[in-house]
Amino acid sequence: MHRDEIPTPALLLDIDRFERNLTRMASHVRAAGKHLRPHAKTHRCPDIAKRQVAAGALGVACAKLGEAEVMARAGVRGLLITTEVVAPSAVRRLTRLAGEAPDTMVVIDHPDNVRALARAAAEDGVTLNVLVDVHVGARRTGTEPGEPALAIGRLAAEQRALRLRGLQGYAGQCAHVMGWAARREASHASMAPLMDTRARFEAAGLTVEIVAGGSTGTYNIDLELPGLTELQAGSYCVMDLDYRRIGGRTGEAMTDFEMALTVVATVVSVAADRVMVDAGLKAFSTDKPFPPEAVERAGFEYGFAGDEHGRLTLTDPARAPKLGERIEFFPPHCDPTFNLYDRVHVVRGTKVEAVWDIAARGRSD
Amino acid sequence: MHRDEIPTPALLLDIDRFERNLTRMASHVRAAGKHLRPHAKTHRCPDIAKRQVAAGALGVACAKLGEAEVMARAGVRGLLITTEVVAPSAVRRLTRLAGEAPDTMVVIDHPDNVRALARAAAEDGVTLNVLVDVHVGARRTGTEPGEPALAIGRLAAEQRALRLRGLQGYAGQCAHVMGWAARREASHASMAPLMDTRARFEAAGLTVEIVAGGSTGTYNIDLELPGLTELQAGSYCVMDLDYRRIGGRTGEAMTDFEMALTVVATVVSVAADRVMVDAGLKAFSTDKPFPPEAVERAGFEYGFAGDEHGRLTLTDPARAPKLGERIEFFPPHCDPTFNLYDRVHVVRGTKVEAVWDIAARGRSD
Repeated sequence: MHRDEIPTPALLLDIDRFERNLTRMASHVRAAGKHLRPHAKTHRCPDIAKRQVAAGALGVACAKLGEAEVMARAGVRGLLITTEVVAPSAVRRLTRLAGEAPDTMVVIDHPDNVRALARAAAEDGVTLNVLVDVHVGARRTGTEPGEPALAIGRLAAEQRALRLRGLQGYAGQCAHVMGWAARREASHASMAPLMDTRARFEAAGLTVEIVAGGSTGTYNIDLELPGLTELQAGSYCVMDLDYRRIGGRTGEAMTDFEMALTVVATVVSVAADRVMVDAGLKAFSTDKPFPPEAVERAGFEYGFAGDEHGRLTLTDPARAPKLGERIEFFPPHCDPTFNLYDRVHVVRGTKVEAVWDIAARGRSD
Repeated sequence: MHRDEIPTPALLLDIDRFERNLTRMASHVRAAGKHLRPHAKTHRCPDIAKRQVAAGALGVACAKLGEAEVMARAGVRGLLITTEVVAPSAVRRLTRLAGEAPDTMVVIDHPDNVRALARAAAEDGVTLNVLVDVHVGARRTGTEPGEPALAIGRLAAEQRALRLRGLQGYAGQCAHVMGWAARREASHASMAPLMDTRARFEAAGLTVEIVAGGSTGTYNIDLELPGLTELQAGSYCVMDLDYRRIGGRTGEAMTDFEMALTVVATVVSVAADRVMVDAGLKAFSTDKPFPPEAVERAGFEYGFAGDEHGRLTLTDPARAPKLGERIEFFPPHCDPTFNLYDRVHVVRGTKVEAVWDIAARGRSD
């Protein structure tokens, strides 16, 4: 199939750019003497996860149990579930998953949850690998660093059916700090309590094989930390407008990784003052305060115009798109854009080389 | 299954409320001597569409061809595709659909598209039912009212393989005008050119069996128009925060239809200053400037905190949610929230009565 034959709106992955992104990140992590367990919440696609592992990743991080179940059943191993698993039925699913993929890890941040996991794992005859989730300023999950984290670690270490592996600290508030120097300062300040917690764990004789954290925004910042063992960056594999604008180590834009993900749309209506495409808020993420951007096509600006429509406001009427014209756009935010599609079309030049299932789409459970 | 056993986050439909909404709208439309072809873009769920038809609807409106294909294959008839079908491969799919469901209608707004549809229909041996899409101020699709619309109507009427059925005019800009009186004034002003276009079609001897338009916001406004034959309201069947706030004919809130759609989440992490639930921007629509609202549960406010997390900021620490607590939320906008889920859990009281596939989820093509 030619890329111009794909029904629109559709999600496209530029495989050349994607492959270069994987190679670049793998080289960077290897040179730093660290590991990579990329976040699969970005793409929810086992075919992408397998390519990340083939490029050297230890496995993938999953935001949710449901995502991890799909990855495991597709044969991906080395899974880390980065949100606490709390509901009783979810804990049962987790022990079943640990039976199928015994190296799966999950994070913990509350003593009640530690005991519930230990009880279920013992009953179901499995060992659960756990990391203590440490709050490093994102105001999401995680126990406070230092003594509170140590208490959770000690409790976990006492449980026969749990195996303490180390720590996780995700400083999400630093991922999109504008400008590399400012971002570096923010991230190092946020991660310092995690490094201190690591030292306390070691002093207490608790296992710290793994200290996981970091994002695409801090990929070349957090690996400077001697105490961090692995990076969880996700978006690097495809990038998006939100990450491109944060600025690189050198330069205004973050160009270390290439923009590999686009949405292709078709012009379905033209009028004197506007041109409408068939891609609206069910085709692009809407959680960022800026719109999709056309790829190498000037003359207009995109604005959301409902569930299924985008309005192109002409800035150069001489270049007004024609009825039936196909236009590609970079999405504002890759993760929730992937999550709108069941499939991604893998294109190399003008050829559709494959269609990959976004098999964990919608699996937030 | 008990509703407390559903893995979270999950989409819930309160079937009692939903059924009352269907009955209320059916009575209202019948009393006005009009018809209803509710917009299935709201739910993308054939099981819901079938219940709407059983309650008296003529069929359902579909925003896109892909939605209509799913509805047709599930046995739903009386389909109206409310966006122009332009791409050559899509036109072929449309003629195939017309072969399977011959009463399907599609809108047109451009002479090139009229000729392309006529050519494909003739080649494929089908007749396509068409409505002229008239622009009534939403700045989306549609030809200008009056002479331009008449020209499209005449061109369609000349095509042997097309059957002109009438007009569509969707004044989306009026749907959420705050306050019933202001909304009525806005809608009647916007719809006047559509009514004038209807008169011109009749004077020119062109068929106007159908004049379709209206929204949940204007359901008891547009049916006052003698020239409108059918209403396209969609959200009325489940409602959402966005429609509730526009105000009813009497009262501050629009309470004519009941809030029947919720997302249930679980508390997965608790801290001194915050409580985290497992539902973030992959669990709720994010296109409105206000957040989800907890159902009959005070003491906190929800804020988005990433793909998979919602942060509950405590307003009454005495009522802080506990680890593992389940909390239901009304979504800001029903259409894109449905579009995040593969299934909706149908609950009556505490019992899960059914699980319906949102079979056209993601079918924006």
